[in-house]
Formats: sequence, C-alpha cells, structure tokens
Amino acid sequence: MYGYRGKLLEINLTDSSISVKKLDENLLKKYLGGSGLGARLLYDLTDGQTAPLDEENVLIFMTGPFTGTKIPTSGRHAVVTKSPLTGIWAEADVGGNWGYELKCAGFDGILIKGKAVKPVYLWISEVGTELRDATHLWGKDTYEVDELIRKETDSQAVISSIGQGGENLVAFASIMTDGKDGRAAGRGGVGAVMGSKYLKAIAVRGKQRVEVKYPERLKQKIKELAPEIVDKTRMFGKYGTSGGVQGHEEMLNFPLKNWAGERWPEGVEKINGIVMEETILKKQYRCKTCIIGCGRDVEITAGPYQGVNGAGPEYETIGTLGGLCMIDDLEAIAWANELCNRYGIDTISAGSVIAYSMEAFERGILTAEDCDGLQLVFGNEKAMIELIHKIANKEGYLGKLLSKGVRKAAAELGNYAEEFAIHVKGMEFPAHDPRAYNGVALSYATSNRGACHVQGFTHGFEKGFTMPELGIDQPHPRHSVEGKGEFTAKLQDLMCIFDSIKLCKFVIIGGVKLTDITELFNAVTGLNLTNQDLIKIGERIYNLKRLYNVRCGISRKDDSLPPRILTQKRGPNLPPLGKMLNEYYAYRKWDEFGVPTEAKIKELGLMADYPDAVL
Amino acid sequence: MYGYRGKLLEINLTDSSISVKKLDENLLKKYLGGSGLGARLLYDLTDGQTAPLDEENVLIFMTGPFTGTKIPTSGRHAVVTKSPLTGIWAEADVGGNWGYELKCAGFDGILIKGKAVKPVYLWISEVGTELRDATHLWGKDTYEVDELIRKETDSQAVISSIGQGGENLVAFASIMTDGKDGRAAGRGGVGAVMGSKYLKAIAVRGKQRVEVKYPERLKQKIKELAPEIVDKTRMFGKYGTSGGVQGHEEMLNFPLKNWAGERWPEGVEKINGIVMEETILKKQYRCKTCIIGCGRDVEITAGPYQGVNGAGPEYETIGTLGGLCMIDDLEAIAWANELCNRYGIDTISAGSVIAYSMEAFERGILTAEDCDGLQLVFGNEKAMIELIHKIANKEGYLGKLLSKGVRKAAAELGNYAEEFAIHVKGMEFPAHDPRAYNGVALSYATSNRGACHVQGFTHGFEKGFTMPELGIDQPHPRHSVEGKGEFTAKLQDLMCIFDSIKLCKFVIIGGVKLTDITELFNAVTGLNLTNQDLIKIGERIYNLKRLYNVRCGISRKDDSLPPRILTQKRGPNLPPLGKMLNEYYAYRKWDEFGVPTEAKIKELGLMADYPDAVL
Repeated sequence: MYGYRGKLLEINLTDSSISVKKLDENLLKKYLGGSGLGARLLYDLTDGQTAPLDEENVLIFMTGPFTGTKIPTSGRHAVVTKSPLTGIWAEADVGGNWGYELKCAGFDGILIKGKAVKPVYLWISEVGTELRDATHLWGKDTYEVDELIRKETDSQAVISSIGQGGENLVAFASIMTDGKDGRAAGRGGVGAVMGSKYLKAIAVRGKQRVEVKYPERLKQKIKELAPEIVDKTRMFGKYGTSGGVQGHEEMLNFPLKNWAGERWPEGVEKINGIVMEETILKKQYRCKTCIIGCGRDVEITAGPYQGVNGAGPEYETIGTLGGLCMIDDLEAIAWANELCNRYGIDTISAGSVIAYSMEAFERGILTAEDCDGLQLVFGNEKAMIELIHKIANKEGYLGKLLSKGVRKAAAELGNYAEEFAIHVKGMEFPAHDPRAYNGVALSYATSNRGACHVQGFTHGFEKGFTMPELGIDQPHPRHSVEGKGEFTAKLQDLMCIFDSIKLCKFVIIGGVKLTDITELFNAVTGLNLTNQDLIKIGERIYNLKRLYNVRCGISRKDDSLPPRILTQKRGPNLPPLGKMLNEYYAYRKWDEFGVPTEAKIKELGLMADYPDAVL
Repeated sequence: MYGYRGKLLEINLTDSSISVKKLDENLLKKYLGGSGLGARLLYDLTDGQTAPLDEENVLIFMTGPFTGTKIPTSGRHAVVTKSPLTGIWAEADVGGNWGYELKCAGFDGILIKGKAVKPVYLWISEVGTELRDATHLWGKDTYEVDELIRKETDSQAVISSIGQGGENLVAFASIMTDGKDGRAAGRGGVGAVMGSKYLKAIAVRGKQRVEVKYPERLKQKIKELAPEIVDKTRMFGKYGTSGGVQGHEEMLNFPLKNWAGERWPEGVEKINGIVMEETILKKQYRCKTCIIGCGRDVEITAGPYQGVNGAGPEYETIGTLGGLCMIDDLEAIAWANELCNRYGIDTISAGSVIAYSMEAFERGILTAEDCDGLQLVFGNEKAMIELIHKIANKEGYLGKLLSKGVRKAAAELGNYAEEFAIHVKGMEFPAHDPRAYNGVALSYATSNRGACHVQGFTHGFEKGFTMPELGIDQPHPRHSVEGKGEFTAKLQDLMCIFDSIKLCKFVIIGGVKLTDITELFNAVTGLNLTNQDLIKIGERIYNLKRLYNVRCGISRKDDSLPPRILTQKRGPNLPPLGKMLNEYYAYRKWDEFGVPTEAKIKELGLMADYPDAVL
C-alpha cells in the first residue's frame, strides 16, 4: 500500500535473530501506523501480567504513512511499550530525523523482543541490518553515543539511544534521538525498557524515497496548506513552545511549587521563550520536513553553566524544572535540560520528582540525612542539578527513591506523602494545570498513558482552536462542564490520528483541519477515506489502548486526579471530575466502571470476545 | 483509681513470660480504657512498618471503667491490634461475659506480645495465670474449644478463642467469646493476629468485685435510667437487631446484590427478626448486665440446617450473608452464621467477599474452573455455605483468594475487578448503605478502622436520636449536606467514649444521654468530669487513632468510598463526599491532607513532636 513499506523489522535480542515481517494491509488500514499500530502489536504480544522490565516485554518503534513524505511536520515516530513507570500502556511521540530515516531504510517500524546478554546496538542501512557490540558505549551519554556511532557507521546516520538513565533503569528514562538536537521519546520510561534489553542504540541510514499514490495532488495540497501554517506559527517558531510562559502563568496554568503555588510573575519573567530568544538562543531547530521550527538550539559560553550547546528547554521543561521547583534562572534550567537529555531522562518527570522531594524536605518527611545534606528547598537550583545526577545514576537513598517516579517514591515514604504526589496512574503531570482547563482535567484523568496534555490537546481548543468537522466550531469555555466529556473524547480520538499517521499537533496552530489530513492521507495512500472513517479509526485506536489498560487493572477508580488538584483551589475553579467523567463514559459507550462495552468493541471491530481474547 | 484495677497483664509468648504492669493513673484519665487506652498502647508499641502477622505486632484486650460494675450493658471489652486486613488501626468491640470476668480477675486488660513456638492457651484465675499447651485444641472450632477448656479449667470460666479461621490466618478472622453464645470481636482480622501468635484461647474466671467510689449514687443513677432503657428497647429486645430489616430495605439502606441492588421486598420479608422470632428463636440472649437483650439464641431441629443451636444471626449478618448474596432462606443464613462463629471468621466480611465473588463469577472474571465447579450465582445458598468452609480452611484457589479480604482479592483478579470491591481502606462495608445516609457515607470514609457504622453511629442520629449536649437537638436529615462534617465528627468522638468506657451503644435507643454517662463515670471513679471533659477525651482518642493511621500512610486519598457508591445512584441520593470531607477536616482542625494539625495535637496533649515522636 502506498505510504507504507509493509515491513516490520523484528529483532530478537535473546538469540540475536533478525527477521523481516510483513505488515498486513488490513492491519494498516485498521490502525494506520505509529502508536495505533503499536497498540495493536503490544496488545497481542504482551498481557496484563507482563513485567515491563522483563525479557517478555517488547519495545516498538513505529512510523506512520506520512513519515518519509514531504508533508510538513511528518518527520516523527512513536515508541510503544508497557511502561515501567505506570505499569500500563506507554507511548512516546518524537520528532527529529530518525523516523524519516527508518522509513527511507525500508521499514515501517521495528519490533524489539527479548534481552541481549551484553550491550549491543543496531545498525540499519542499505547494506542490511546488524547487531553490534556496544560494550564500549555503555556508560556514555546520548550526545557522546551519537557522535561515536556516527563515526563507526556513517556520518549521516541518525541515532536513537539511551543514556545512563536508561541503562540504570530509571523509571522515567527517555530514548533520545538526533544527538545534541535532543529530541526525546520522553514519557513513560521507554528508555528503561531499552536499557533492560541491553540495547544501547539504534542507528539508521536510509536512502529509498517513499512513493505516494498521487504525488501531484499531494504537492498541491501541501502548497495550499504551507503558507497559512508558516504565517500562523511565525511567533511560535520565533519564541518556541516557551514563548507563552507568562501568558500561561497569568491564566494560572503554569505549574508552581509542586502544584501548590498560585502566582509568580516575578519568576516567569526570567524563564520564558522571549528571554531565551534574546539571550542564549543560537537558532531555531526544525524536525524533518518541519516548516514551523519551534525547536531551540541554545548555547551558553560563560558563567557557571557554560558549555551548554544543543537543544534548549521546551515549555514543559521550563514548567517542571523551573516553575515546579521555583527556579528562576534560565541558564540553570538550560543546563539541567541538557543533563536530562544527555543522561536520557524525561525532563517532565525529573522536574516533578525533584519538586516533590523539595516539598517533602520542607515538610520534614525527607530529612537532611536522607538528602546527603542537600538543602532541598524550593528555588535551590544547585540542589535541583545535583539531584539530576543522583537520579540518573541512582546514587544514594534519594537518587534511588526518586528514580522510581513520584508514585512509588511517595508510597515508600509513607505518612501522608502520597497526598502531594502529583500524578495520574503513576505518570507525573506535564506543565498544564487541570484547574485552569476542565478539559485538561478530564484529559489527564482519562489519557491512556496517564496524565497527559497532548493525548487530548484540549487546552488548545479551550483557548482558541476549532475543528468544525468534529462539531467544535467554537472554542470550548475552559471552565465549562456541560459537553466537556464529548468534547474531550472527540479530541482524544483525533489525537490518535495524529499519533498514528505521524503529524505534529502544532499544525493545528497553523490552521490545519481534519479535512486537510484526510485529503493528505488519501493523496498518499490512494484510499478514499472520509473524515468520518478517519475519526472511527481514531476511536478504535483509543479504545484498544483502553482495553490494554483494562487488562492491566485500570478502571474508573484510576481515572482520577490527586487530592490537591481536586480539593485545593487555584483561582476560581475546581474541576468537577465525577460529573465530567459520567458524561465522558456515556459518550464513549463505556460502562459504569469505565470499561468499553461489548457493543462498542463490536462496533469498532476490535475483537470477538472480551476482554481477554486475542484480537 | 476507683473503677480500675490499675493492672495490665503482660504475656510475652516468645519466652512464655508473664508479668503484671501498673497502669499509670494519668494514662487512665487521658484515655479512659477500652480501645482508647488500647490506642495509646498500640501507638507506643508498634509503628508504621510493623507487619500485622509478625511477632512484633501486639494484641491487646482491654476493659473499661464501667466493666465489672452493675451499669447496664457494660459487660464489654475491646480487642486492639494492627489489622492484617487493612494494615492500619484495628479495634473490635465485643459483649458477653469475658470482659466482666477479666475485670473481676483483677486486670484492666491483657497485652500479648511475641509468638509462641506451639499452640498455647492462657488460663487466668484466682490461683494465678498460666500458659498451657493447646496442641490438642488446634484445629477445633470455637464452640468445641469453649467446652473443652471449661472442662480442663473451671466450668464457669469464660473463654475467648479462635477457630480454624484465626489459625489459618484468614485476614478477617474473629475472636469469639462465650462459646455458643457466639459473641464476636469480629472486624479487622484480630483473630488472625491471635492465630499468628499460636494463642488459641484465653480462659478467665474472676471473683473480685469491682469497687466504685459512690455506690449509692451509682445505684440511684442506674435506677433512674433502667426503666426508660427497658421501656424504649422492648421491641428491639423482642425482635433483635434484625427486627428492622424490612424498614431498612424500604429506606434503601439494606444492602443487596453486592451493593448493586435497589429493592427486594419479596426477599427481606423472609429474612428478618420478626420471622426469626416466630420460627427459630429459642430465647433472647443478654450480655453481662444487659437489660436490653437484643442477642438471639436460635435452634433448628429439622431440615437441611438442623443442628444449629446457639447464637442467631444479627442484622449485619443477615445483610451480608443474606442481602448482599441475595439469599432469602433464613435457616441457611442461620447455619452460615453458626459456621462463621465456629470457624471464627467475621460474618460481615465473609458475606461481603462471597457476594463479591458472585458478581465476579457472573461477570466472567471468576471462571467455573477458578470456583471448582461451584455455580457461584447470587441466591445460591449452597455455594455461599460451601465458600465459608473454603475460606476458613483456605481451601483451593478461591478459598485462598477470598480469605485475603475483598481489596486484595480484587487486586489479584486484575481487570476492572477492583471497581466492584466494596470497602474503605480494605474493610468491607457493614450492612448500611452510605447512599441512604450522608452521615454514614462520611463515617465510612473517615472511620479509623475503615468502613464502619458504629464508630459514628450517625444513622441513628439521622433517623431519630438526639444528643443535646453535642448541640444535636434534632435528628439530622439523612440527605442533608450542610453541617454533616461537624455532626459526624462529634458523634465519632462520642463513640470513642462508649468504646473506651465500655458501654453498649444501644443504650442510646434507651434514651441515655452524655450527661448520664458523665454522671455514671463520676459515680464510679469519684472524679468530677464535665460533659465537655469527656468529649475532649473522646476527641483525643479519635485523633490518636488517626495519627496511628497517618503513620501507616493513611491520608485524604484513603478517606474515600468505592466508585459504585459515589457514582451509581440508589434512590435519589449520591453522597457529595468531597464537600462533606472539607467541612469535616475544617471542624477537626486537620490539614488539607487529613492530617491533624500541630495545633490540634498540642491542644489535645497528644505529643510534643509530630508525627513520629514517641508519645
């Protein structure tokens, strides 16, 4: 089928076998690619009992039908596995060049099974695929590994790798790609799964162009969309994702002091994208085929943090390593960001667990002795940076504790420590306050990978965007309740399309609508889907991920928010979660427990028997 | 001090040592006795890490200042320990003659430490205290043990013992007292702690009268109260606790079908106290000094359940083994009740886990194979009875699973099985629906031992009773929200007095008020406390138990109700728990996490440093 290779590279690390599996056309039509197809594979290959860091877990890298084409912002891939952080569904979406390269190497994706006996890396090129010894790379950070492997293989190879975080099985270790450009498959601990398999890196170099069915139609459509995207995202590109930090803080959306702060204008005026652009920004960074360029390339040449040179901190990173920890030093945040990238640990979870530990310290639950004498108070950037080293290296009591993520750390601390552990299903919050947007509240509570803002992207549609094809022709007022269940469910289904087809969600800022995506998809594949067909696929994927989680024990009880968020006001609003959840389940046709009904499962063609039958 | 012996019998089973410890007068004044004094001892002797079934846990039997006097309904004692069912505070209050006997043997209580190497029993008499071999009693049920030990010791000895449930460490094993009169220290698995220590029984025979300070004043006060108690509880005595089953069902308070049922008039008309009185009731049973006589003595002489002879089922037992399991055969319930008593397992938890397993079976989560072919459907009394055998003997997969209690069983089953596991903090619900009374909802959510109706007894005060000394001069409307936090907290503090001073809560039906209790207490002890003094003691005790739980990791997140109760209506009402909880915390001066504030702890004279300092 056009837009696909129809091939899955399967690596069994236990016996070092490499094989190529055919991807059935029906499967591609039903699950598109990316994390949708990944969900289907993960559902079939693991189960509720699979231990995330055991040999039996699988690690899936997957491109989509847009990857490898010229469609703007399609240079993306998904990483899918069972999460060591949450114990449930994990997906991490990542930009850069790696997915493009893999597709050009002739594969839609890679399925990693088993576990090597010693460190290895995978090298995929025109010549073929080989597993190579990586003993000499073990212990190196992701920037170093990138350089070293390119020297050993091809200077134009693109590398996905883990740092010490993944090697040490930090529960929120990331898989980094594109070296010091620092693109991250960040969330859910996918890097720890890679580390558990002794797989240090995957290097790819591909040269085969991806054929599309109607090149001219595709070209025309891109030509039609591009100017508006460029125009509407100009400021976003100039200042990056963190351009809006001050606006978010004013809206009480930017997170502060482990989610207990209200306002901090004097802080955020120092740690935002505009300041960055005026100080440490070297240039914009663009993922493959991107015409927005929200990525940052920064450099610090003097002062305590000199040496920083590469990817700059994103909005979420500034929110967590900055706002949550009350650190108003942009260069310190940039340095912390680079450390996280090099070590390969998720900046969001890292900032969250550090802020958490600061509150625990200030409350006396963590003692000076627990902290090896660190003065772990809010605003202490030295302590924050020191903790990143400790976490990535699992150093000392505190490093080991925090490396487990905030849910497990809090459970170990006991007392009332779980009360201010801010997560859903074990996933630490990104930098959007659910009290600022009821849709975000509902998204966090229900997203399949745990607290997540991009699996619903509702805040965008509660602030300014519309999607008339879904009946969303007005922005949804952010504190409204009525209709929020349906609104959120529809957007989650839509986001499943983005994550599977492989398209950056920021094109929504550029005015791209569902109809545009459908037209692009039909031009690429030659199929003739309607908007409704695509939405149905999104819904199927969303439900499949939910069924995976149900098998892991997830149900209504887990679709919740931490007590602090449900009971402590920030501004006028507390999200009425129960009410929204009822509406959400009713719209989704899930039962009282949040389990998809048999009728819905049948309607989506998901499986004959429920819930434990093989698909 | 009058009303007390000032002596605690301490047994260390590890080295078979027996000693007598002095109970400091200040301690008695601060914590009264019963579960109040028990809380103080447990807090000091165990901690958040203590494993309930390990040698390090302690088991405390405690009487109160009223025990041993002629005060009506004072023939009671408390059993206190760390619960194997919930992992937190456990107390079980029990009637009968044992507490009275212990007090007359010269002790306020018994503290059991350590663990024997083989089965033993304790024999306390005028002659002294000795540990005796109980190898020949191991494996016997509580009715048998009672007879056997009385033969070996004194025909008038009173025995507290465990059956096979406690021996097998069933998480909700009870300690039974008074042989076939079947009085139970039922809740929280206190029997498993006794079993873990290889302590089969404690037999007591005491002959020393308890001296009170003002015998004449006491006599007068009793004379004043008794007629009204007798008069007002006449029907309650005649039909027992289950006389009101049909009224409770009409009010949507009686539990049905694992808490998913709405109405069942055709069922409850067969399983209530009036039918019992007309059929199997032999006579009323009275605990020591009781003038109410709500206990049942029943006998079945024909049919499949012939042989039943002794304690009959209480309201809670009919609610759980009957209503929850949809079993409308009173004789089957009476037989199941006797089995539970003999095995020494809590009828409430047993009925709850069985009903739970029926729902799991009907939903296909438990298969026929899991159930050894049992047709585990609602209404199948044979399956219900078979399961009691399996649970007490931990027989087969299902017996082992259910013996852990509903929380752990559900967690092991996975999928969405936790959604319909009805408990708070691991404690299965008693037979009152929180949707019928908002005060019960708040009580269940906050009670220190987990879901409990008698630690607040709010339903009584939402239906008809008043306590003007607490400002409760009108019954609180059961679906009202405003003021429910304060109302519930005050009643919980009051109930701490009952449980510590040792007085049956049913005297409230008989019109007894706080002022009466204060006068009785002053007549017994010679102290000159006010109502307010006593209430302060109640509050101190309640907060101490909470602090114990906080040390075990309990906080606001645990003060909740299962999703079914919070989201599925039964009748018009869903309890607005969050709102009531906010008010409740505010009234109690607990912080946002549900932790007593330092100010409150100081006010109550509980401890200098918080929360981990030794008292």
